[in-house]
Amino acid sequence: MTDDHIVKSFGEELDRIDQLIVEMGGLAETQLASAIRALVRRDSDLANDVREGDARIDELEREINDRIVRILALRQPMAGDLRVAIAALKISNELERIGDYAKNVAKRSVVLVQSPAMSSTLTISRMGTLVQSMIKNVLDAYVARDAAAAEDVRDADQEVDQLHTSMFRELLTYMMEDPRNITPCTHLLFIAKNIERMGDHTTNIAEQVHFLVVGQDPEAARTKRDKSSTTVVNPVLPVSTPEEAGGA
Amino acid sequence: MTDDHIVKSFGEELDRIDQLIVEMGGLAETQLASAIRALVRRDSDLANDVREGDARIDELEREINDRIVRILALRQPMAGDLRVAIAALKISNELERIGDYAKNVAKRSVVLVQSPAMSSTLTISRMGTLVQSMIKNVLDAYVARDAAAAEDVRDADQEVDQLHTSMFRELLTYMMEDPRNITPCTHLLFIAKNIERMGDHTTNIAEQVHFLVVGQDPEAARTKRDKSSTTVVNPVLPVSTPEEAGGA
Repeated sequence: MTDDHIVKSFGEELDRIDQLIVEMGGLAETQLASAIRALVRRDSDLANDVREGDARIDELEREINDRIVRILALRQPMAGDLRVAIAALKISNELERIGDYAKNVAKRSVVLVQSPAMSSTLTISRMGTLVQSMIKNVLDAYVARDAAAAEDVRDADQEVDQLHTSMFRELLTYMMEDPRNITPCTHLLFIAKNIERMGDHTTNIAEQVHFLVVGQDPEAARTKRDKSSTTVVNPVLPVSTPEEAGGA
Repeated sequence: MTDDHIVKSFGEELDRIDQLIVEMGGLAETQLASAIRALVRRDSDLANDVREGDARIDELEREINDRIVRILALRQPMAGDLRVAIAALKISNELERIGDYAKNVAKRSVVLVQSPAMSSTLTISRMGTLVQSMIKNVLDAYVARDAAAAEDVRDADQEVDQLHTSMFRELLTYMMEDPRNITPCTHLLFIAKNIERMGDHTTNIAEQVHFLVVGQDPEAARTKRDKSSTTVVNPVLPVSTPEEAGGA
């Protein structure tokens, strides 16, 4: 009877951690959605809500962390349960970082309200929607302990990377067209990069889910399709010093 | 006798993890130094060495991770030792990310060789040297279990943030001066951001060291001096459409 009780309440403790992870993930997803909406609608109030909302995600990470340390200390879980505890620790850390990026998007979107609206925010919004569904799907995969669904999330990240690379080129082109675009486009560059990084962190969660189910890391190395770090865009019309124009 | 032997070998296992952390940190520090040197000297070969060198850091993270999971499973450490294990897990994760950023700096420095040299690389190099010494000092603080030294590392990050914010303004100004500066300055913006992020991750390690020694998180919330996310720079000479110039 006593043994049975202990086993049941240990399971309950792990279930509680799962619930907290799902709550944290849901919040991260909402924060991203709101940050993007604030950007598109140029809504500084909403952006400020996002900036404040991040504290709750940080709080949840600390709670999950404390619970896991307590489980490790008091329950001394073996094999499978230990794997769950370690994975939860890592997943909550990834979600915390996703929250940080959403907060930074919101912060920059407030600055962007001072500049004219730019069409690129729509591509960014598409990137955001993609990452949002990745977060949703990876949490479902986590709850269902579904390695195949987690694998699909990893694949989806390639589309995010491709969108990011083309966004990078597009924004550099706008900057070259008019120097007044430089400040807003720079913030949009970093916003796009933030969303691309959220995709990476979601992919890391997918890899943790895979590890949780299969017991080892995914076999195939992940293909990175983000080429923005090595992208060069040259101005169409060279200005200032004609003798350098051909050589650059 | 047997008990004594087990205790000793457990201590040895934890010492081995400390050694691996120090090795990993030393590598991260070297990777950053080399990435900066590659950038300043426009040395693509060195940059490619950095890109390849990151695999060793990833490998060390996996090794530390596997050893800690084994310790948790077989030794079931309590209180202090458990804290060491959890902190090491987190610190190795932070170092892995520092390595990733060094790799990205190296990647972008290869692209920059195609553009004329820019004076801003010297400020970036100063930021890099600062973060490098932060990494060195936080590892010393970790080995010595010195909370005060860890606190100094947290403080040093404020200077990195300030340099980053002024770097951000400077690069935007160069972009406005000549559209041909836009691509190289954008990569420099991301390089500066990468180094600023390395400072943040080093600060996270300092907080782990504090936690390890004191048993709780640092009391004072960290002051973020990086204002780049909210910085606006306007072109000195408005061009193209005069009717908008006053309104922007």
